[in-house]
Amino acid sequence: MPTSNNIIPEKTIERLSEYRRTLLSCHKQGVTHIFSHVLAGMHGITAVQVRRDLMLIGFSSDTKKGYDVKVLIEFINNILDSENVMNIGIIGMGHLGQAITKYFNGKRLKLRIVASFDVDEQKVGASIDEIPCYHMDRFEEIVSSMDISIAVICSPTRVAPSLVVPIINAGIKGVLNFTSAPLSFPHGIVSENYDITTILEKVAYFVKESDERDDKN
Amino acid sequence: MPTSNNIIPEKTIERLSEYRRTLLSCHKQGVTHIFSHVLAGMHGITAVQVRRDLMLIGFSSDTKKGYDVKVLIEFINNILDSENVMNIGIIGMGHLGQAITKYFNGKRLKLRIVASFDVDEQKVGASIDEIPCYHMDRFEEIVSSMDISIAVICSPTRVAPSLVVPIINAGIKGVLNFTSAPLSFPHGIVSENYDITTILEKVAYFVKESDERDDKN
Repeated sequence: MPTSNNIIPEKTIERLSEYRRTLLSCHKQGVTHIFSHVLAGMHGITAVQVRRDLMLIGFSSDTKKGYDVKVLIEFINNILDSENVMNIGIIGMGHLGQAITKYFNGKRLKLRIVASFDVDEQKVGASIDEIPCYHMDRFEEIVSSMDISIAVICSPTRVAPSLVVPIINAGIKGVLNFTSAPLSFPHGIVSENYDITTILEKVAYFVKESDERDDKN
Repeated sequence: MPTSNNIIPEKTIERLSEYRRTLLSCHKQGVTHIFSHVLAGMHGITAVQVRRDLMLIGFSSDTKKGYDVKVLIEFINNILDSENVMNIGIIGMGHLGQAITKYFNGKRLKLRIVASFDVDEQKVGASIDEIPCYHMDRFEEIVSSMDISIAVICSPTRVAPSLVVPIINAGIKGVLNFTSAPLSFPHGIVSENYDITTILEKVAYFVKESDERDDKN
């Protein structure tokens, strides 16, 4: 893969996901080619940024016709999608944990939820959506035996900080943290704090701003 | 508020949320002051970017000691948090919709979930976590009577495109779309496509990349 030799910046990876989402939508609408400035406009960024991102992943195109939408989608797929399945463990099988499990069970991804962890005796030992739920005490053991590389934290926010050490000890390589407690991990562990509140606050902010602009006009 | 006269770019708002998350964590750890380059380093961006963002919101600080963490948090709160409560409606009370409802019910936000919508006769007419669930046929009527300004889409992905017109007709001002179907809305409606898969794929990408780097060494 083009990326195996040079790491791509995080923000570029995010934008590639966003581009792919837009391109898939364009493709669905029958659009076969798209110019960098059009794609840029759809994301509120400059065409230079789009071209730089695509240059980073080694994608070039006929600028007379614009980018071939289908080809670019496949090219981004090759960058973002891993070749081998990665195993995921969910920490905290409350409503959010169960929702995320159900959310992914339907999808054909190179990512597979194989285990969940909780401390609630009602859940431990049971299977939720065919995903076995283990006691958090067994985290290290199960992560190793099931070859889990990514942990998704859906625990109560107050519990999240106490999960950092077990996650490090278990040799987890990637963490997706859905709680409102930002967690930091040592180098070598990829982590993403993903507080849904932030996005809702962002939407609310722009709604508020447009209201205030309307009031002025 | 400083923002009422000039709109702040979306990416700046996102970074402000990220800064606030980091600052809250620093504050929790007893850090009283932080330099722009330190804050920048924690987010993998340049100090110039941080200073530009804070300049945009009219925040200045004693550069000898760095930014006052507590003051900056409160300053960002004033930018991001709306002064009045905004009402939210959840479309689709499946597992994700219920998870998000439960997720927010605990939080003290200037955002309040007041209604949910579904087509499942098992849910319509019932209250889920004290949130009444209405049939999607009544969306326009309820949005208007309950003064709902933000819609959170938790429906099945295949249903999402069919929600655009009802949302426009109901006069919704902000949309947070959790499905995998990117939706676009006319100017005047703030919308955010928030596909959880993208973030998980991003984490998986960087795990994969670090594995490949390890293999090389």
